[in-house]
Amino acid sequence: MTVAPRFCSLCGGPLELRRPAVEDRLRRVCSACGQVHYENPKIVTGAACLFGDRVLLCRRAIEPRAGFWTVPAGFLELGESPEEGATREAREEARAEIAIEGLVAVYSIPRLGQVQLMYRARLLAPQVAPGLESLEVGLFSFGDIPWAELAFPTVERLLRRTMTLAGTAPPFIPVCETLGSDDARDE
Amino acid sequence: MTVAPRFCSLCGGPLELRRPAVEDRLRRVCSACGQVHYENPKIVTGAACLFGDRVLLCRRAIEPRAGFWTVPAGFLELGESPEEGATREAREEARAEIAIEGLVAVYSIPRLGQVQLMYRARLLAPQVAPGLESLEVGLFSFGDIPWAELAFPTVERLLRRTMTLAGTAPPFIPVCETLGSDDARDE
Repeated sequence: MTVAPRFCSLCGGPLELRRPAVEDRLRRVCSACGQVHYENPKIVTGAACLFGDRVLLCRRAIEPRAGFWTVPAGFLELGESPEEGATREAREEARAEIAIEGLVAVYSIPRLGQVQLMYRARLLAPQVAPGLESLEVGLFSFGDIPWAELAFPTVERLLRRTMTLAGTAPPFIPVCETLGSDDARDE
Repeated sequence: MTVAPRFCSLCGGPLELRRPAVEDRLRRVCSACGQVHYENPKIVTGAACLFGDRVLLCRRAIEPRAGFWTVPAGFLELGESPEEGATREAREEARAEIAIEGLVAVYSIPRLGQVQLMYRARLLAPQVAPGLESLEVGLFSFGDIPWAELAFPTVERLLRRTMTLAGTAPPFIPVCETLGSDDARDE
């Protein structure tokens, strides 16, 4: 979750809640320099990476949900496209080289300030290994996915979505879903 | 464009560039409290809003590109889904009520730190009026779109994409494009 800022990142002055002109809501505004500090949702990018009929999963070494299984995914960085971000995450978390096939799901989680762009990708080689953020990695046939030990609801949704797309070629019609507080653990 | 932060938003301490443990790149880290300040791309959400075969355009009252035409679009706010954000922007910029039909384009502009989620929507009534950020608004048949006076390259792309989808029903296969510096004005 995002922690509300208290000081101006430009001048270090204290922030106050104020409604700027031509706006209809309160913003955090610097009482010293007047800068308005917007707080915006973040983009998570990731991929269900397939080698034949098996999908790459990573057991998380870090919180939240350490010890649980996920697909390679993480926050998009400045300067990269979502496809580049998903490719980087596969490399970082599973030492995996992938080729993005297409967007298969957009999950938005307003409570967490996240929009997740999830892709299907081809794993270019089955040699994978845990990166710094993974305890172990592996290739699972759909029948062997540890459903009860998945890290986040969106991982389960993405894997089920990927199952329904098995045997189909890109481009895909992505599902666009907004998750409420009931099905959004702290991703 | 994003301005690099210089002070910690939590404690007001000065930031320094440092590589945190378990990371492979430099981050801005508070030299007083140790907080790592990530900088992430922002989500723009908007819609091509159709009433029959006419599309809603707004002439911008604000920079960048004041005086040029755009579709209702803007930065996603905390606490809303992209579809809710696009609906809000149509209301704010054109006093328009819309129903989102589906995602038609994902434009990523790494140079600007933006990912744009663009939808097709039905305009529920043809009564529209300029909001605070618009000089004027109007409904244009595709033949009458002021192509030379559009505010941003992604607006032109979205309108052309919407033209190719004319007569088709949702769901859509969205185009996913990454725009380079040549075709990305300061949106």
